[in-house]
Amino acid sequence: MMDFLTQCRAIIGQTYVLDTPDGMAPFLTDQRGRFTGKALAVLRPGSVDEVAALVRTCVEHRVGLVPQGGNTGLVLGSVPDVSGTQVVLSLARLNSIRQIDAVNRTMTVDAGCILQHIQEAAAAEGCLFPLSLAAEGSCTIGGNLATNAGGTAVLRYGNTRELCLGLEVVTPQGEIWSGLRGLRKDNTGYDLRDLFIGAEGTLGIITGAVLKLYPQPKACITALAALPSPAHAQQLLVLMQDCCGSSLTGFELMSRYCLELVAQQFPQLPRPFAEPHPQYVLLELSSSESEQHAIGLLEQAIGAALERDVINDAVVATSVAQSAGLWQLREHIPLAQAKAGKNVKHDISLPVSRIADFIATTEPLLEAAFPGCQLVCFGHLGDGNLHFNVAPPGGMSNEDFLHNQDQVNRVVHDSVVAFGGSISAEHGIGTLKRDELARYKSPVELNMMRAIKAALDPLGIMNPGKIL
Amino acid sequence: MMDFLTQCRAIIGQTYVLDTPDGMAPFLTDQRGRFTGKALAVLRPGSVDEVAALVRTCVEHRVGLVPQGGNTGLVLGSVPDVSGTQVVLSLARLNSIRQIDAVNRTMTVDAGCILQHIQEAAAAEGCLFPLSLAAEGSCTIGGNLATNAGGTAVLRYGNTRELCLGLEVVTPQGEIWSGLRGLRKDNTGYDLRDLFIGAEGTLGIITGAVLKLYPQPKACITALAALPSPAHAQQLLVLMQDCCGSSLTGFELMSRYCLELVAQQFPQLPRPFAEPHPQYVLLELSSSESEQHAIGLLEQAIGAALERDVINDAVVATSVAQSAGLWQLREHIPLAQAKAGKNVKHDISLPVSRIADFIATTEPLLEAAFPGCQLVCFGHLGDGNLHFNVAPPGGMSNEDFLHNQDQVNRVVHDSVVAFGGSISAEHGIGTLKRDELARYKSPVELNMMRAIKAALDPLGIMNPGKIL
Repeated sequence: MMDFLTQCRAIIGQTYVLDTPDGMAPFLTDQRGRFTGKALAVLRPGSVDEVAALVRTCVEHRVGLVPQGGNTGLVLGSVPDVSGTQVVLSLARLNSIRQIDAVNRTMTVDAGCILQHIQEAAAAEGCLFPLSLAAEGSCTIGGNLATNAGGTAVLRYGNTRELCLGLEVVTPQGEIWSGLRGLRKDNTGYDLRDLFIGAEGTLGIITGAVLKLYPQPKACITALAALPSPAHAQQLLVLMQDCCGSSLTGFELMSRYCLELVAQQFPQLPRPFAEPHPQYVLLELSSSESEQHAIGLLEQAIGAALERDVINDAVVATSVAQSAGLWQLREHIPLAQAKAGKNVKHDISLPVSRIADFIATTEPLLEAAFPGCQLVCFGHLGDGNLHFNVAPPGGMSNEDFLHNQDQVNRVVHDSVVAFGGSISAEHGIGTLKRDELARYKSPVELNMMRAIKAALDPLGIMNPGKIL
Repeated sequence: MMDFLTQCRAIIGQTYVLDTPDGMAPFLTDQRGRFTGKALAVLRPGSVDEVAALVRTCVEHRVGLVPQGGNTGLVLGSVPDVSGTQVVLSLARLNSIRQIDAVNRTMTVDAGCILQHIQEAAAAEGCLFPLSLAAEGSCTIGGNLATNAGGTAVLRYGNTRELCLGLEVVTPQGEIWSGLRGLRKDNTGYDLRDLFIGAEGTLGIITGAVLKLYPQPKACITALAALPSPAHAQQLLVLMQDCCGSSLTGFELMSRYCLELVAQQFPQLPRPFAEPHPQYVLLELSSSESEQHAIGLLEQAIGAALERDVINDAVVATSVAQSAGLWQLREHIPLAQAKAGKNVKHDISLPVSRIADFIATTEPLLEAAFPGCQLVCFGHLGDGNLHFNVAPPGGMSNEDFLHNQDQVNRVVHDSVVAFGGSISAEHGIGTLKRDELARYKSPVELNMMRAIKAALDPLGIMNPGKIL
């Protein structure tokens, strides 16, 4: 039996088998720099057949594989463990857009395509690929699919799962499943596609996908509303959806503290209101008709909200620059947080109807456990998804506070589960939340997941130690 | 060990264990009357706990279970085989709407709820549950979920899978999985929900679901367009979506022959055009704003289509009665077919961009194999879904033609697969298409399905013989 790495070199060429510390380093640490693993090698195949041949070699030698796209994940799902026995399999060289079908409104892509390139290729055909998130300049669609990524367009277009019609997957046996169907309706057996989506590479390696495209909206406008409370934000969401239907494409909640943090750290950014308000909602409306139509619709909805005392005030962006400025406020919250110091982050979701009650219940629990701690609460309220982050009390060092991370998680996640929510809305499980998953999922559900993992990957070579 | 039926009676009461021929008869024959099975008994539990207890009893006695909702399926998926060793487990008594959350826009229901009752309950809260199909007065949501039913609203709202956020399932071990989440985002492990949806009861019994609701549109208008060819219909779809975005909620293709058949069999129905045209498209637009808005949008789109010679002519319904009349034309096609005689039916889907080529290629193949046969081609073109039915040549008896069913299927399904399509768009596999599935699916995909089935239902008691 040939040596494992010799076999890998024979398959993909010496250049693409990285086994020096310098060569491997960029693939071993997660994006936030919280964890560094070790690897036997980093493998960079250039085709689906090469991926399949590498997997068969891993099977032969019982080597665990960690699939990696842009390595922008937030739950340590795309880096190897510290054993040094696993290989990283980078999909980055599989980066072709294979086909665009503007009539079927589909695009067939390699898993290693950067999300932004896919957005641009769709736009060049007059179409929209709606998935949009902070890492879009470096994340890959394979990673988006493996984690069922969310982002800012879920309200209208759904998660990555809803944007995918077909997959190509290399199985844990090193076979190629060609499920690249561009069909809106297909009821021929079990839904393997949705099983691989969100499985974080633990059931197989996604190598290609057929994505859904949409008509490009003709206009997109933005407004910022000021509100008395999260309960008012819930009411505003119902009102906006009743008025605007699917034209409502963005609905982002930000607390007063979030915008104060942004103003402190980025004083050059706009301050839309003279006086502070307890809560803000960033609204985005898209129209398939015209800018005039979008503005008319938005003004009518805002008028109704003012009249019914659902909002205190609102500003509508009247230029692209103003619109970008409002979105910058939202996008700078995590950056302002990072500049201000460490905090304990949560990526949670709740039934939209429970959000105000959840915040009202959980904030006092945190205050009781960690007097003076500061809640940084913002997120995609339209999807029930909050980034519910907790910053240390004034005077406490970041390090001291991070020692309490598990207790902070316990307060927040216990409350989330009590309100019927999820401890991971859009980031996945990886290794970061694996113990939390085991704590909160029912044994019935965990046993079904383990049975599926064992059935499809009996040797346990696919992204070992992630999720389960 | 107690006798099996005695145990069942102890769990659900004597009244709800049917074992006489008369009592069982309504549950043993499929809706189209093509097949009658035999059963040990029909079990009618009244609660989820009773379902679970019955499944555990079936496990103990190794008795196969056939879950049944409204028994309106079209692929023999909800009737037992002829062995007489299986039981039918009817979910019909689980028919409560458990909760409606108008802010979260969700409804939690028992699996045995009739689809139409769910639609009505949503409407009473000012909401829309968009799933709509011919059998809605008698089919149950559990069956809709088990088969991932399609229907006329898929273009805008997706299949049943896209309308479901959470499930409650009794597993093949008789445990209850409580996955009744009302969350738009939840990335906590494998997507079990979508695995059970569309599995036709072969992996577990769906007993409850959380469904997505939408705002009720303020207006909905209908038009009928006349076109030279299916290729023009493809162009019209692109044009309508570019003009109207998600306001386009219906797009149904009907050939000249379809409407002639309807006119022959139902002469009282409207005839919108004085002269015949090769193809027709039924268009439906919904507006979250007003009727005026919908009409304006539709007239603008139709104007553009006429200007670019995409359509020959169009009539817009100006009243609810006219709109209903246009939909009746579409809905009476299968009824007219049934009155005119038997035919070989296909429920296929294709990439929307391939539909015209598929029809142009396949019609001559059928004509060559069965000279004089008549194609009855209509369906949800917006989803790429055609009901591509073949009627006997004039002079050939229905019976003689039905002897050719397998050969007709071979011509049509070979062509579907060559064009990248699906042999079952919205009806599922059941036993009717099980051999076709085995013929057309890749061994890689079939093996993954079999591995999942064996992992979750190792005793093989869940709807044995269906799909695989």
